[in-house]
Amino acid sequence: MITVLAGGVGAARFLRGLVTIVDPATITAVVNTGDDSLINGLRVSPDLDTVTYTVAGAIDAERGWGLGDESWRVMESLGRYASVRPDASDAANTWFNLGDRDLATHLYRTARLHEGATLSAVTDEIRRAWGLRIGLVPMTDDRFETMIEIVEESGFRTVPFQEYFVGLRHGVPVRSIGFAGAESARPNFLPLVNESEAIVIAPSNPLVSIGPIRALAGVDDSLAANRERVVAISPIIAGAAIKGPADRMLGELGMEASAVGVARLYAPVCGTLVIDAQDAHLASAVEAEGVRCIVTDTIMSTPGVAGDLARVTLAAVLEKGR
Amino acid sequence: MITVLAGGVGAARFLRGLVTIVDPATITAVVNTGDDSLINGLRVSPDLDTVTYTVAGAIDAERGWGLGDESWRVMESLGRYASVRPDASDAANTWFNLGDRDLATHLYRTARLHEGATLSAVTDEIRRAWGLRIGLVPMTDDRFETMIEIVEESGFRTVPFQEYFVGLRHGVPVRSIGFAGAESARPNFLPLVNESEAIVIAPSNPLVSIGPIRALAGVDDSLAANRERVVAISPIIAGAAIKGPADRMLGELGMEASAVGVARLYAPVCGTLVIDAQDAHLASAVEAEGVRCIVTDTIMSTPGVAGDLARVTLAAVLEKGR
Repeated sequence: MITVLAGGVGAARFLRGLVTIVDPATITAVVNTGDDSLINGLRVSPDLDTVTYTVAGAIDAERGWGLGDESWRVMESLGRYASVRPDASDAANTWFNLGDRDLATHLYRTARLHEGATLSAVTDEIRRAWGLRIGLVPMTDDRFETMIEIVEESGFRTVPFQEYFVGLRHGVPVRSIGFAGAESARPNFLPLVNESEAIVIAPSNPLVSIGPIRALAGVDDSLAANRERVVAISPIIAGAAIKGPADRMLGELGMEASAVGVARLYAPVCGTLVIDAQDAHLASAVEAEGVRCIVTDTIMSTPGVAGDLARVTLAAVLEKGR
Repeated sequence: MITVLAGGVGAARFLRGLVTIVDPATITAVVNTGDDSLINGLRVSPDLDTVTYTVAGAIDAERGWGLGDESWRVMESLGRYASVRPDASDAANTWFNLGDRDLATHLYRTARLHEGATLSAVTDEIRRAWGLRIGLVPMTDDRFETMIEIVEESGFRTVPFQEYFVGLRHGVPVRSIGFAGAESARPNFLPLVNESEAIVIAPSNPLVSIGPIRALAGVDDSLAANRERVVAISPIIAGAAIKGPADRMLGELGMEASAVGVARLYAPVCGTLVIDAQDAHLASAVEAEGVRCIVTDTIMSTPGVAGDLARVTLAAVLEKGR
């Protein structure tokens, strides 16, 4: 059994590689739900859908999110209502662009949740509908909201993650990150961590993708207890994130935007860090953080590279375990 | 002020004619919400939308419901999930076909209701978004569900109206009609009835379009008190409904499927009935029910005919009032 702690795009690409080198039925992805939002009354789970669509080979490769062969009729039509909603309303929200094909997923999820199904149950139904053989588990079925305190000219303001990430295009400085609901939300996956031969922390944003998963009660303790079987892949390469604001966020929050900074963040819960060949010179600094360091190509430009990365990543901990 | 008690298609066509002969700002349509349903988690108000889209000139004329220039991407995509939902679930409901453009309306309505807006407020926003100058009032903001007891081989079964009307294509016999919530739902329009110069009962199904409006507390009393200013148009012409199951329903429930049957139903609340020229021979039978009878063309094949019908209908009660 292999457990992968996952955010969005980076994790999804890693999983697409992983399924090519081990039996998908042995893999379970535990996915961040801190970004989940109510958009136009619909329950949107961005990371779950990115993983599902990517592993299914249905993601829009160019855009990096949503489905290929997409159209935008509903969103275009929704624009009509933006002019009549009251100022305080978020209805006819068109900054969060949902494609027509994608909308079907949100409609299905929302209707099932209305019927009383858990997010876990609905996620598994959606997984099966897309023919995925890996397991897919939302990190929690409970309310959990990643909140971003942003810096504006007029002062500080705290907004839900998607408003920062999509609405503001993560173009504003971050002052702090909070997790509403973290105290009471129950993790769905602690037994998995204890039973897995390898626990992979995917190359996702350590603060807002992996951070929420780690913020759930008992998760860091479970990972620490299994630290020798935990391996992470640095999402920071040559000081920058491939995608998204991880590098800026680390800097703004006083951390080092480098593989070494990632090692420092993960050291309590993770025995091994995989870093990119471009960062080979940082290997000893990583190891100085008390983390074993593996150097390889981590830019998953093709599923082949992702497969190679998955092989190297797994080998690092499976060898240790034997 | 003119108040029109309205169901779906027939009422919408009448209103489209009415706005051509009097100032739209003097007209308020009070619309049946007994058909409103939760479809794929979305709040769908079929009669409100049919009236809005028709008066806006945006209805799909051929289909008779929904918007023109429509596409069906979301519904096609939703089909994927039908195979994975549990048996008891109504998610991925594709028998209730919602077009992509139409979906925007349901998303907006649902999101606003989630935000705590009343159906009246949302209806008025949607009305303004479509540029309608007539007033549009849902008959009630409270829960109200038209339930149809149908006859099946295995016995009787009670289903929500849309399941009978769309799901079963009104192809099964009806044993009884019930209105869940009628006792507690508060009508939105009693002052309007008392203040209007003319109250028109549109050519809608008397049992499941006008019936729900009349089932609200105080409505029949208010109409009866203003009976001389109430005029109805028979939706039954030569023993048949132009559209829908009104004729069969009347017969199945032991009523006469004719203009005379309609007169009998409406006599307590309505002083005048407009019937089609094809039914001219029934005029004296209608008047024998205690209802003044006007004979004219009522098949609204064009807005011109609808305008003429509206003129004759209004004249019948406005003359009386002067």
